[in-house]
Formats: sequence, C-alpha cells, structure tokens
Amino acid sequence: MSDYTPTERTKIRRKPNRAVYDEAAIHAILDEAFVCQIGFAMEGQPYVIPTNYVRVGKRLFLHGSAASRMFRALAAGTPLCLSVMLIDGLVLAPTATGHSINYRSVMVLGKAQPIEDAQEKFAAMRAFVERVIPGRWPGVRPPSEQELKATMVLAVPLNELSAKVRTGPPIDDEAEYARDVWTGVLPLKLTPGAPLPDPRGKVSIPVPEYVRNYSR
Amino acid sequence: MSDYTPTERTKIRRKPNRAVYDEAAIHAILDEAFVCQIGFAMEGQPYVIPTNYVRVGKRLFLHGSAASRMFRALAAGTPLCLSVMLIDGLVLAPTATGHSINYRSVMVLGKAQPIEDAQEKFAAMRAFVERVIPGRWPGVRPPSEQELKATMVLAVPLNELSAKVRTGPPIDDEAEYARDVWTGVLPLKLTPGAPLPDPRGKVSIPVPEYVRNYSR
Repeated sequence: MSDYTPTERTKIRRKPNRAVYDEAAIHAILDEAFVCQIGFAMEGQPYVIPTNYVRVGKRLFLHGSAASRMFRALAAGTPLCLSVMLIDGLVLAPTATGHSINYRSVMVLGKAQPIEDAQEKFAAMRAFVERVIPGRWPGVRPPSEQELKATMVLAVPLNELSAKVRTGPPIDDEAEYARDVWTGVLPLKLTPGAPLPDPRGKVSIPVPEYVRNYSR
Repeated sequence: MSDYTPTERTKIRRKPNRAVYDEAAIHAILDEAFVCQIGFAMEGQPYVIPTNYVRVGKRLFLHGSAASRMFRALAAGTPLCLSVMLIDGLVLAPTATGHSINYRSVMVLGKAQPIEDAQEKFAAMRAFVERVIPGRWPGVRPPSEQELKATMVLAVPLNELSAKVRTGPPIDDEAEYARDVWTGVLPLKLTPGAPLPDPRGKVSIPVPEYVRNYSR
C-alpha cells in the first residue's frame, strides 16, 4: 500500500478522520469521475472552470482549445488547484445540523505541463475517449494532425494532493434518537439513462454493448 | 424574462453559443445542484473546495464550521469564484475530437457576506435542509443556539455570474458520418438508490414519501 504524503497545504485539518492519503483509494476516485474543477487566479481574481480529465499513471491529462485563456494561462505555469468530487448520498440525521452528504473528493495542487510531442498528444486523446467510454476508440476517426495542433493537452502531476471521504450513517448523539423521525442514507449515483440515437446516425447500427452497459 | 448582464469577467468567450444569461434558466441550474466548488486564493495559491449551498432569492447561502480556514477567509472578504456543474450526458460523435459532454454549469464571482443575525442564520439552516431534502425540516430537531454559534453562514450575492450549457447530439461535419459507428448521446443523471436505514434508527418508522420519491 502506497501513500501520498500530505504537505502543509494538502493536510486535512477540518474533520481529519475523513482524510484519505492512500494512493489506490485516491486513484479509484480519480478514475470514477471524469470532470474536475480547475481553480486558478488572474489579476487577483480566482476562477473555477469545469473540464474533462483522465488519469494516466501519476498524471492527470486536460485538454482544451489552444485559444482558451485558461489553457494558455495554465500552460504558462499559473499555479492551479484541481478539485474532483463524487456525490454518494444524502445523510438524514435526527438533528438539522447532523445532516450531511456522503462524498469522495480529491484536491490536487501544482502546475500543468504542456504536452508538445504529437505522439504523446495522440496517446492522451486516445485516453480521453477510451477512459471516459471504454471500448469507444477503435470505431471513431482518430484526431488529424490539424486537430492535434488546435488542441492543447496539459499534464498535471499527482505530487501534492489529498482526498476527503465521508461514508456511512448519521453520527448524532444517542440522545437525539428519541425523536420519531426516519434516519439513514439516501444513496445517489450518476446513472445512465436510455441511449439517445443521433438523428444523423445510421439506424442500421445497433447501440454498442459499451453504451448499453455503461457504468462508472 | 430577466437576464443577468455579463461583465468583462463573466462573458463567455469560448463557444459563446453555449452561453446562458437568462435568470430563470440559471436559477434552475442552481436549484437542481446542491454542491458547488469554491475557488479562492491564499498567498498566491488557488484552492478549490467543494461545499453544500442553497439558493434563496438572489443569494447563495454557504455554511461551515466557524473554525474553518476557508470560511474565515471568505468571511473576511477574500474574492471567490463559485462553480456549479451538472453532468447531463456523454456525446458520442463519429470523430474522436467531436466527443463531448452535455452539461449545465454556472460561475459566480464575488465576495461572501457573513450572516450574523440569529434569526437569519436559523432561516438559512432551514433552507439547507429543506431545499436539499424538501419535506425533511418539520421532523428534525432544529439547530440550538450553541449549534448556530458554531456554524458560519455566508451569503454570496448573485450579481456577477454566467452559465454555460451544452445540449443535444454530436455536431461533426456531415462527411464524418460515412463511418459505421453508433453516434448519439448517453444521458447521465444523479439518481437515488434504495434508502439505507440507519442502524441506530427506529425500525417502526417507515421510509417517508420525500425519501422514497426523491428526485432533483
């Protein structure tokens, strides 16, 4: 079992019993989610922008338009904070303040490094498709040289990070349980609905297994 | 129909066709989600922290421990960016770079104002419970004076904000549709599972209707 060592900046201070530093547990959170929120500051004003990411080894890859202000700022070495959160449920306690949310979250601090090499960029694009929708890549038209040029790929190293997880039932004092109120957890999960065929798609092509049985 | 007027900082530049400034549409996004990501900077380092929020009128309320570093910094007037994202689906296009995510996101810039008045704080606590789980409040033990003191409630005014929304099928060029590959959208939604009763709860109390039929 390998751990990420917390720094002064990533050590969990509020509710330290929720802290997770175990590498496998953190990677599992990062692999279930596929959207992160990137925080960075420009002229003293913080911005937080959601974007797609994938984990490959000990790096997170981001991609965006080479014309995007955020991607240009991050590529230039602007310090960032990358935040990922999975919502797992609502915690219904006997007391109002005992109510909570079950979740798994990861915070990564650092800087992004632009991926310039065309082959590395191509591999990252493959990862974006294949890690969000496993099985998808072989059927699609791969990125052209021009599309790769117009796309900026950034890597964020998983060096300075921590995770915070809440699981389980309410934790109110026993005395609060005198009330006649239902308590427990309502699980929540990002769940696929019925696939919506593309109006321009070929009706002869069945919905592939990797779409029908999609889950994260 | 009322609109939020974009500023230089909130005007959508990338993919402006996805911009939404309509007040009712933005409020609907803010009312469906209940977790936001708060960005702020300390000593030049940005941090992004997920937290629960609720909208009441033209303000978002946040709450946390009065001992939390983030809440103390925000209460002191540190500029913030609050980001909310709902994931609606995966967009499967004929080309790798045509793949996308359907989503609805809101970005709010500004500063938080601490709510000091006990009655206002109490009303905000009621909103946290009742807007996340409508119908829950009447059954729970309301916050005590001491609990209210230990809780910091902040209000973020909805003055400077914008939203970005992607909906619908892939938008690849017609020529790309020559490939024999399924295309379309796989909808995704945060969906409740079967309620998990509290091991310490009373077995005689049935799961309430507001839990059984929960949806956002």
